[in-house]
Amino acid sequence: MNYYSDAITDLIDEFSHLPGIGAKSAQKLAFHVINMPEDQVKKLADTILSAKKNIHYCKECCTLTDQEICPICASSKRDHSTIMVVENTRDLAAYEKTGKYNGVYHVLHGAISPMLGIGPNDIRLKELMERLQKDVKELILATNSNLEGETTAMYISKLVKPTGIKVSKIASGVPVGGDLEYIDEVTLLRALEGRTEI
Amino acid sequence: MNYYSDAITDLIDEFSHLPGIGAKSAQKLAFHVINMPEDQVKKLADTILSAKKNIHYCKECCTLTDQEICPICASSKRDHSTIMVVENTRDLAAYEKTGKYNGVYHVLHGAISPMLGIGPNDIRLKELMERLQKDVKELILATNSNLEGETTAMYISKLVKPTGIKVSKIASGVPVGGDLEYIDEVTLLRALEGRTEI
Repeated sequence: MNYYSDAITDLIDEFSHLPGIGAKSAQKLAFHVINMPEDQVKKLADTILSAKKNIHYCKECCTLTDQEICPICASSKRDHSTIMVVENTRDLAAYEKTGKYNGVYHVLHGAISPMLGIGPNDIRLKELMERLQKDVKELILATNSNLEGETTAMYISKLVKPTGIKVSKIASGVPVGGDLEYIDEVTLLRALEGRTEI
Repeated sequence: MNYYSDAITDLIDEFSHLPGIGAKSAQKLAFHVINMPEDQVKKLADTILSAKKNIHYCKECCTLTDQEICPICASSKRDHSTIMVVENTRDLAAYEKTGKYNGVYHVLHGAISPMLGIGPNDIRLKELMERLQKDVKELILATNSNLEGETTAMYISKLVKPTGIKVSKIASGVPVGGDLEYIDEVTLLRALEGRTEI
């Protein structure tokens, strides 16, 4: 049974389809929107539509952008011979926030996952291989440190190795500030394996 | 600095203004929306706009509705001589879900809060007093069990008492299934004061 009128129920319904929004949050959001001033509601709706309309993949690195070539790929200050491979645009932003990486990126938009039926052709791998025809010196694999991410890194590394391009993988280990006793065994073993001389 | 293009940043910004949505959730939502099929994005934006446009206060009980008189107030099966006073439409829905209350409601849209500068004229109290001119037998106060809710209940009860209409307040006490040892002292004392003979 509906306890609210249709327009409210529809809005709650729409919000509850978004990720991480449960029934209660959707209700809270819907009533918040209804109580917002009209111009703000219009701005919210317009921003949603315009983001969807204007955002597409960068022709170079496949990140989400509203330009043909994203600012990173278009920049002459970046080192275009080093490509970091990430799973999605958020991971790209995470590395950009460090402000220390000066190469360019390649966004796969996913990872190989036989469980979910995602194969090499379902991610932006073909585009990566095409980019490697140009003058690329190093490929840094920064896929996630889970089964899918590792599988994808392994797959790419096998594919690229014969070309002679240097392939590296970001280190996995104990996070900075992490308390050893709370860290899982796999990570601890990885950190041990990846130990470096000081 | 912006790590995303403007259209994405704007969308993240819009989402992060909503209640309970932090920076990370806003990011997640924005990328989800960008990856949604175009017709679904349009539906989301349209639903937001149409909810804002069509929802207004019921002329009787002030709940949010898309009709002139809400279905509860319009129903001849409900007991119109019993009015339950709630703070907002969600509280109304909470009691409707029990399916056991047969009276009508009055939605205040807030509670008196000197701290926040919300006085009796800022909530729908005038509309309630007007309704009491008609044939009303009982007023059930179901405002929240916090300082603002209690103040509001006290204020209304003092205002209505002289009219001779019966005024009651929903019981506060130990929630059903609640474990005594985890319940705060004020609630325990309230439950003791409100004890009923069995």
